[in-house]
Amino acid sequence: MAVITVLGSGIMATALATPLTDNGHEVRLVGTHLDREIITSIQETGIHPNLGLKVPDGVTAHQLEDAPRAFEGVEFVMSGVNSFGVDWAGDQFASLLRPGMHVIALAKGMQADDDGNLTILPRALASRLPEELRSRVSVSAIAGPSIAGEVAVHRHTSVVFTGEDPEVLTRWRELFATEHYHVWTNTDFVGVEVCAATKNCYAFGAGFMQGLLDAMGEAAGDRYVNYNYGAALFGQASVEMIQFMELLGGKPTTPIGLPGIGDCFVTSMGGRNVRCGRLVGSGMTFSQARAQMPGVTLEGAAAIVVIGRAVVRLTERGIVPPERFPLLRHLYEVVGLDQPVAVPWDSFFGGDGSGQA
Amino acid sequence: MAVITVLGSGIMATALATPLTDNGHEVRLVGTHLDREIITSIQETGIHPNLGLKVPDGVTAHQLEDAPRAFEGVEFVMSGVNSFGVDWAGDQFASLLRPGMHVIALAKGMQADDDGNLTILPRALASRLPEELRSRVSVSAIAGPSIAGEVAVHRHTSVVFTGEDPEVLTRWRELFATEHYHVWTNTDFVGVEVCAATKNCYAFGAGFMQGLLDAMGEAAGDRYVNYNYGAALFGQASVEMIQFMELLGGKPTTPIGLPGIGDCFVTSMGGRNVRCGRLVGSGMTFSQARAQMPGVTLEGAAAIVVIGRAVVRLTERGIVPPERFPLLRHLYEVVGLDQPVAVPWDSFFGGDGSGQA
Repeated sequence: MAVITVLGSGIMATALATPLTDNGHEVRLVGTHLDREIITSIQETGIHPNLGLKVPDGVTAHQLEDAPRAFEGVEFVMSGVNSFGVDWAGDQFASLLRPGMHVIALAKGMQADDDGNLTILPRALASRLPEELRSRVSVSAIAGPSIAGEVAVHRHTSVVFTGEDPEVLTRWRELFATEHYHVWTNTDFVGVEVCAATKNCYAFGAGFMQGLLDAMGEAAGDRYVNYNYGAALFGQASVEMIQFMELLGGKPTTPIGLPGIGDCFVTSMGGRNVRCGRLVGSGMTFSQARAQMPGVTLEGAAAIVVIGRAVVRLTERGIVPPERFPLLRHLYEVVGLDQPVAVPWDSFFGGDGSGQA
Repeated sequence: MAVITVLGSGIMATALATPLTDNGHEVRLVGTHLDREIITSIQETGIHPNLGLKVPDGVTAHQLEDAPRAFEGVEFVMSGVNSFGVDWAGDQFASLLRPGMHVIALAKGMQADDDGNLTILPRALASRLPEELRSRVSVSAIAGPSIAGEVAVHRHTSVVFTGEDPEVLTRWRELFATEHYHVWTNTDFVGVEVCAATKNCYAFGAGFMQGLLDAMGEAAGDRYVNYNYGAALFGQASVEMIQFMELLGGKPTTPIGLPGIGDCFVTSMGGRNVRCGRLVGSGMTFSQARAQMPGVTLEGAAAIVVIGRAVVRLTERGIVPPERFPLLRHLYEVVGLDQPVAVPWDSFFGGDGSGQA
């Protein structure tokens, strides 16, 4: 049985303690500076307040200042922070990791430089490590459709572990896989992580279909909803995720299955990003919608700004043709430039008005 | 302005009168022998009883015995029957069509012979025509995500018109396309129609996720639902739709976008098939669930039996490897052989238990 130390005690990091402890492993949750109350709650009552559940036996909780002790002697480490915390986590790991340790990361998103060059988050995290350490640890990642609470209560969940080294991925898989938590491994690291990041963007748009009905009010009734609209956005998202593979070096087949299509489905079914997209779809600007959700983390909206701005920059540089990514470009206009929703239907599916699908 | 005569007055056939009449065309709805009350209702009150809406101006309704007059002199004909009525419609068309007419068909499904050879429905329909007529008419089809009622009330809808002749498809597109009804054309006739048929199968499985929660009862609560389960099925459906392209001769890219992913999404969001899948997911056999829905047409379940049996037969013949289509095979066990739901998770995504995605 192994010990897995986790930096960050958000709901997904904590939910993943369920399959790990089901397999008899010990899990040490180390809170970030933002997680103080969560850690105290778990220490005092066993309850994770945001997850609304008791953590399993075999889980211990530690404040950040106890991190060095929690990391001592362990081989397996999870980076449980979200996309906003990746650089911070990398800086912590720079002093906490030791040669031979294996890291698996949860955050979904990308980083971009001023030229629009995009980097997947596990590589951004690794880049914060001192060079002599970087080559002596592994950094892998978890992707695929998984709502945290469902993992915590043993709903069947099928995910993808991705990284460069198939043997390391197999070791991670052996730690996690249970009869409810199904794990596939995939060494298309860039492809899987780009799916994970971009599906968060497209799920924001999934909120528009309900928002439009909200704007229609009573007249819309509930007999005829707006799924045709959502289905076309979902279809276009699948096209653009494959375009991203070509642009960034993933395999064209990677979005098919769990990392792209499957995860885009689950993320479109609800959550904070979809709720914000719904407000925007009802007629608010993004700034107005954002103001209605104070203190709420919106990773999808943030990813739209990073990736959308990068795509615009790559088009200026002549690298991405302007007719590619019409849905992502529009999401960027809405979220990044505060413009109203006006879906460019006829630019979808390679469309130029001539209607060739 | 054109006249379009429609054989069959179900909800989708009638809903499509909305874009056609928006463009100023005349639509003649001809009921089948099963549609007598619908036609009488439209004739007397203008209301389509199942759609719950008044048909647009420019639509006339005709009983079957008036079909010859309704077909007289028209160039464009729609086959509005569902998959169960295709052979019957083909037999009617054998005497009603004239050389030079263009047919567009709505039914989604496939037919199979005893060897497991599958045929797309527009070709099954055309095969009922006398040979000398068959080469002098065109048969195309409409696919892609569209809930009928949403089309009728001007929700944005994006579809694919498919057939062999791009010029004919362009003519159909010109008749139908409006600012709300967006039409792409695609000459991958087999690919698009196979997507249309198979997504109906996979949408049946989408009901399982809610059914499982139903079976758990109060304990499941509504905080943690079962979307991870549904997302994995959806992801596997996307993999299998692409496997079907290889098997039956469609392009591997055709399921990406509207005909496969988009339509699978919308069909999974609700309807009769999903409701039946939900009953089965809650623990009933298919026969028991079927008995709870007397008189209800279940095209998805029927497609599972036709296509699932064909895949089994093609495996017996050595044409399809046994590890392909694990989800469709299980749907066939459930629907065709009345077995309980037991999703073979580890066989998904090329899985052999080794976990390679």
